[in-house]
Amino acid sequence: MTLTQHVPASAARPAGKTNRPGHQASLIVQGADATGIVAALTTVLSGHSANIVSLDQYSDNPQGGAFFQRTVFTMDALQAALPDLRAELDEHLVKKFGLAYTLRDLSVPKRVAIFASKSDHCLLDLLWRHRQEQLPVDIAMVISNHPDVAEEVRSFGIPFFHVPSMGPDKSAAEAEHLRLLKDNVDFVVLARYMQILSGDFIEQAGVPIINIHHSFLPAFIGAGPYAKAKERGVKLVGATAHYVTEDLDEGPIIEQDVVRVSHADTATDLARRGADVERAVLSRAVLWHAEDRVVRNGNHTIVFA
Amino acid sequence: MTLTQHVPASAARPAGKTNRPGHQASLIVQGADATGIVAALTTVLSGHSANIVSLDQYSDNPQGGAFFQRTVFTMDALQAALPDLRAELDEHLVKKFGLAYTLRDLSVPKRVAIFASKSDHCLLDLLWRHRQEQLPVDIAMVISNHPDVAEEVRSFGIPFFHVPSMGPDKSAAEAEHLRLLKDNVDFVVLARYMQILSGDFIEQAGVPIINIHHSFLPAFIGAGPYAKAKERGVKLVGATAHYVTEDLDEGPIIEQDVVRVSHADTATDLARRGADVERAVLSRAVLWHAEDRVVRNGNHTIVFA
Amino acid sequence: MTLTQHVPASAARPAGKTNRPGHQASLIVQGADATGIVAALTTVLSGHSANIVSLDQYSDNPQGGAFFQRTVFTMDALQAALPDLRAELDEHLVKKFGLAYTLRDLSVPKRVAIFASKSDHCLLDLLWRHRQEQLPVDIAMVISNHPDVAEEVRSFGIPFFHVPSMGPDKSAAEAEHLRLLKDNVDFVVLARYMQILSGDFIEQAGVPIINIHHSFLPAFIGAGPYAKAKERGVKLVGATAHYVTEDLDEGPIIEQDVVRVSHADTATDLARRGADVERAVLSRAVLWHAEDRVVRNGNHTIVFA
Amino acid sequence: MTLTQHVPASAARPAGKTNRPGHQASLIVQGADATGIVAALTTVLSGHSANIVSLDQYSDNPQGGAFFQRTVFTMDALQAALPDLRAELDEHLVKKFGLAYTLRDLSVPKRVAIFASKSDHCLLDLLWRHRQEQLPVDIAMVISNHPDVAEEVRSFGIPFFHVPSMGPDKSAAEAEHLRLLKDNVDFVVLARYMQILSGDFIEQAGVPIINIHHSFLPAFIGAGPYAKAKERGVKLVGATAHYVTEDLDEGPIIEQDVVRVSHADTATDLARRGADVERAVLSRAVLWHAEDRVVRNGNHTIVFA
Repeated sequence: MTLTQHVPASAARPAGKTNRPGHQASLIVQGADATGIVAALTTVLSGHSANIVSLDQYSDNPQGGAFFQRTVFTMDALQAALPDLRAELDEHLVKKFGLAYTLRDLSVPKRVAIFASKSDHCLLDLLWRHRQEQLPVDIAMVISNHPDVAEEVRSFGIPFFHVPSMGPDKSAAEAEHLRLLKDNVDFVVLARYMQILSGDFIEQAGVPIINIHHSFLPAFIGAGPYAKAKERGVKLVGATAHYVTEDLDEGPIIEQDVVRVSHADTATDLARRGADVERAVLSRAVLWHAEDRVVRNGNHTIVFA
Repeated sequence: MTLTQHVPASAARPAGKTNRPGHQASLIVQGADATGIVAALTTVLSGHSANIVSLDQYSDNPQGGAFFQRTVFTMDALQAALPDLRAELDEHLVKKFGLAYTLRDLSVPKRVAIFASKSDHCLLDLLWRHRQEQLPVDIAMVISNHPDVAEEVRSFGIPFFHVPSMGPDKSAAEAEHLRLLKDNVDFVVLARYMQILSGDFIEQAGVPIINIHHSFLPAFIGAGPYAKAKERGVKLVGATAHYVTEDLDEGPIIEQDVVRVSHADTATDLARRGADVERAVLSRAVLWHAEDRVVRNGNHTIVFA
Repeated sequence: MTLTQHVPASAARPAGKTNRPGHQASLIVQGADATGIVAALTTVLSGHSANIVSLDQYSDNPQGGAFFQRTVFTMDALQAALPDLRAELDEHLVKKFGLAYTLRDLSVPKRVAIFASKSDHCLLDLLWRHRQEQLPVDIAMVISNHPDVAEEVRSFGIPFFHVPSMGPDKSAAEAEHLRLLKDNVDFVVLARYMQILSGDFIEQAGVPIINIHHSFLPAFIGAGPYAKAKERGVKLVGATAHYVTEDLDEGPIIEQDVVRVSHADTATDLARRGADVERAVLSRAVLWHAEDRVVRNGNHTIVFA
Repeated sequence: MTLTQHVPASAARPAGKTNRPGHQASLIVQGADATGIVAALTTVLSGHSANIVSLDQYSDNPQGGAFFQRTVFTMDALQAALPDLRAELDEHLVKKFGLAYTLRDLSVPKRVAIFASKSDHCLLDLLWRHRQEQLPVDIAMVISNHPDVAEEVRSFGIPFFHVPSMGPDKSAAEAEHLRLLKDNVDFVVLARYMQILSGDFIEQAGVPIINIHHSFLPAFIGAGPYAKAKERGVKLVGATAHYVTEDLDEGPIIEQDVVRVSHADTATDLARRGADVERAVLSRAVLWHAEDRVVRNGNHTIVFA
C-alpha cells in the first residue's frame, strides 16, 4: 500500500508563499483498522507536546475495514524533532499495526509543474490563487505545447517552457518533460492540457498527476465532452478532477461539480459555462492535494476537506 | 413532426384541483423558423381580445433553424371560442407556415396514471404536492406490481390497482395496464417503477411516459446506478427525469439534478441522498409537463420553465 | 459550560427504529484546548477495546482556543461498561483537563415532540423519513394548535394532541404543553409551528428546541419573510434551522439553504419554493441533532456533519 | 417611467470585441399591460422582415399589471433601418399604448468604466472574460483609489487611472471621476470599490452603476459583512450585484448567489470563499446588463436571463 505523496525526509526547500502557519505538520496514516491506533498515534504526538489542530478519521468498515486518518498538529522546533517523531511512528504505527504514514512539514509547500495548452482559464485561476496566497504550493514551472500563454505566465513571475507536440510520437516531447520535471516537482497538474500522457511517462514522472476533465465522469469519457453533452441533451454540465492513471479518464476522482444549462445553450455555450466549473473544481483539487487532504485508496479517494 | 401531447378538441372534463386561473390557455407552436410567425400568431390572439400572460420562444438557429414557442393567454369565454381559434390557427400557422401546434385550456388538468413499485418517496411527493394543489393534474390511478403502497395511496383518495409482475413474460400484466389506462389518462409517470416497459406497451399506451432514473444520465445507465456510483467513487450523485422510449434510459431528458456525496457514504447512503434528488427532479418534470412547458424535439427537449 | 444535550446515565429505553448499529456510542467533548486531550481520551477508549469508527475535532484557535470533539466508537457490552467508562472520563477529562463531555449509547434513539400548525410539509417529511428509518429518533408525539394534521399524524402511528391557542395569554396552552412533554422527550422540533414560545416555556421545557425559520437568517427576521423577500426583490429564498432562545430568530444556527427564484415568482410562489428548502433544512438539522453531530458554543454551533 | 439604459439614436461607435452576431438588435418594451401589444410590436418587426431570435415577456399581473418584454431580432441593413423602425415604434407602441422602449444594435457594445480598490478578484474576472470575448462590452477605463492594480489592468490593454481618495471630502475625487466618465461610458461597475458614492455623483454620472456587495442582501448591509457573518454563525455566505441608488445597499438586486461555509471557517476564510461568489455574481450581472437582459421596475429588476 502506498500513500498519495511521498516527501523525502531530507526535503529542505525554503518555504514559499503560503497561507498556513509555519509550525504545522500533517500526518496521514492508512492501513488495516485495529483497536488502539488513534491512542498510539496521539500518545506519540503528545509525548512531543504537539497540539492537535484537526483530526479527521475514516474507517470504511467498523468491522475489519481500512483505516484512514489525517492529523494536523503544531509543535515547537518541528524540523528538529522530525527524525525522532519518524522513529517513534515507525515503531508504534508501522511495526505494531502495519500501517503506512506520511509526515510532512506544512510550512514547506509542495512544488508543482502545471501543463497547459491554449485555454488559459484553469491556468490563470491557479496562478491568481497562488499570487493571492490561497494555494500553498511553489509553482516551479508551466509547460505548454503552445506558446500562447507564455507572456501571461511570466507576468506572474513563473518560468514558462514551450515543448511543442511533435506528431503521434510523443517520446521526444515526453523525454523533454521528464528532464524538466526531474527532482524539481512533487506533483503535476494538467490544466486543460490537450495531450494524452503515455503510461511510460506517468511511471517515470513518479509523482501524482492531477487532471481536469471537462465532464461529469463517467459521463462523456474521452474527447469532445461538451459536444457529446449537447448531443445527449443533458440539463447540467460538469467537470471532474482526478488522478491520472494509464486508463484515460478512469483514475481516482478527487472532486466534481456541475452547472445548470438549458436547451438554448449551444455546445460553445456549454464549454463556456463548463469552464467556470472546471477552474473551480481543479483549484479545489489542487488545494486539497497541496494540504494533504486527499488519500488514495485503490481507485477511490478519501478527501478530508 | 408531432407534439409532446395531444389533447382532443372534444376534451370536456370538469376542472380538477389546480393552482392556475380558470381562463388560461396554452398554445405550443413548433416547426421551421420563418419571418412573421410571431406576428401572425399574436394577431390571431389579439383578434380574440386574448391577453398574453407569458410568451417564450426559442429558435435553435437564427438562420433557418427550428422554431418553438409557448404562449399562455387569458380570454373571456375561452371554451366557446376554441373552435374558431383553432380554425384561424390552422389557417395562419399550419397552412401558411407549415407549423404544428397544440392549444389547450389550462383549467382542464391533464390526467395521469402513476406506476410505482415498493419505494414510495417519489410517489408520496407527487401525491402530497397534488393535495397541496401544487400539481395541476388529475391523478386518475396508481398502479403497482406490489401491494405495499396501497393503503398510503388510498389515504389520499386515489384509486390503487395491484397488477403483479408475472415473470419474464410481461404481456399479461401489460395488457391489464393497457385496459386500465385506455382513454383514462393523458400521460403516465413511472415513480421508481422497477419494471422495464416493452416497446409494444409504449406504442399502444399512446401517451407520453415520464420516468425517473436514479443517476445523472448518461452515467450509470441500467440497473444498480448507486452501486455503480459507489464503485466509481463519484463525488456527486444525481437523478434524471426523461420521456420513455424503446431505448432504455436513452429518451429525451426533461430535468436533472445532483447532490454532493463523500467517500464516507455507502451505496445505501448514496441511495438515501439520491432519493431526495429523485423526488425533486420528478416533481419538477411532472409539473412542467402538466403545464405544457416541455416540447420534444427529436431526442431533445425544450423546457420553457 | 453545558453541552447540547444531557442524557441521564440511567436512560434505559428500549431501542426504537434506527439505522445505526446497536453497539455504537457517541462521545462529545468540549472545553479549553490543551496538549494531550486526544491522547488521554483515546487511551481511555482503547483500554476498553473500543474501536473508533469516526473522530472529528475542531479547535477554534490553535493557540489557546476552545476544543470540540465528536468520537463514535463500537464496544462489546457497551451498556454494561458505561459506568466504568464514565468514571474514567470523569477522571481523565473532567478532573485533569476541566472538559465537559456527553457519552451516549447511539442505539437508544432520542425522544422528540414535534409541534406543528396547519402547514404539513415539514411535519410530513419528518414522519416519512422516520418511517423510512432515516431519522434515528422516537417521535413521542405531535402537538398542534390546529386539528388539521391529526389524521395524517395518526396514520403514521404517532400520538397527536390538539392544544388550541387561546389568545394572547399563552400560559394555559404552555402549561398543557409542559405536562405533555414532562420526562417524555429529549428535544422538541417546531415544524412550522406558528406560535412564539415564551421565555418561561423555553426554560421549563429544559430540552433543546429546534425551529425552522422560513428565511435565510439574519435576513427577514420575524413574521412574513416571503412577503418581505418579494418586496425586497431577492433572487434566492432560504430557510434556517436554529436552536430556540428567548430572542426571536436569534438562536444558534444549525443549518441553512437557499433556492433560486425569479422576478416572475409571486410571494405565494416563493412560499412554495421555500417549502422544499424548509423541509430539507429541518430534516438535516433534526438528523444531525439526533446523531449528536451538533455542539453548541455560545450562539454558534459546531456541526460535525 | 424610464428604462434601464438609454443609448442615443446617434450612437455609431465601431463594434468592439463581442460574441454576438453583427446584425442583432434588442428591443426592450415596458409599460401598462394591454391586449394587442405583442401583435403590434411583432407586426412592426415583420414589416421590416426582421427575424425574431428570442422573445421573453413578463406581466406582473394578468389583470391590469405592468408589462415587460425583451425581443432580440436579426435584420438586414439594421443600422440603415433604425430611424424608420423607431418612428414606427413611436407610433404603434408609444402613442397607441403609452409604452416606453429601448432599441439597440447589439453589435455596438456598451462602454463601461470599472472602479476598483485593492482587491482584484472581481476586476480580473471581468478583464479576463472580456479578453475571452465572453463579455460584449468595451472596457473604456479602470479607475482606482489605489495604484496596486495598475500594471495588471494595463497588461490587458485597458487604460488605468489612479484617483486617490482624499479624506472625508469626496468632492475633488468625484469631480475627477466625472471628468473621466463624461460621454465616455454607458455604465459603471464597482468591482469591490471600497468608497461610498455620493448621491450627487450618482445623479451627475447619469448612467447605471452596478455594485457587488459581499453579502446576501438584505443580510449584513454596510461594512464588514464577512465579520458580521462569522459573528452570527451563518452556514452560507453570499454576494449580491445591484444597481446603486442613494440608499446604501438598498438598490434593485440583479443577481445573488451563495456558497456553503462551516464553523471551521474564520472570517478570512469566509472572505476567500465569498470572493469566488462575488466574481461569479458580478460577471453574470455585467453580462446581463450588457445584453439588455435586465429591466428596472421601481426597486425590482426583471431579468430575462
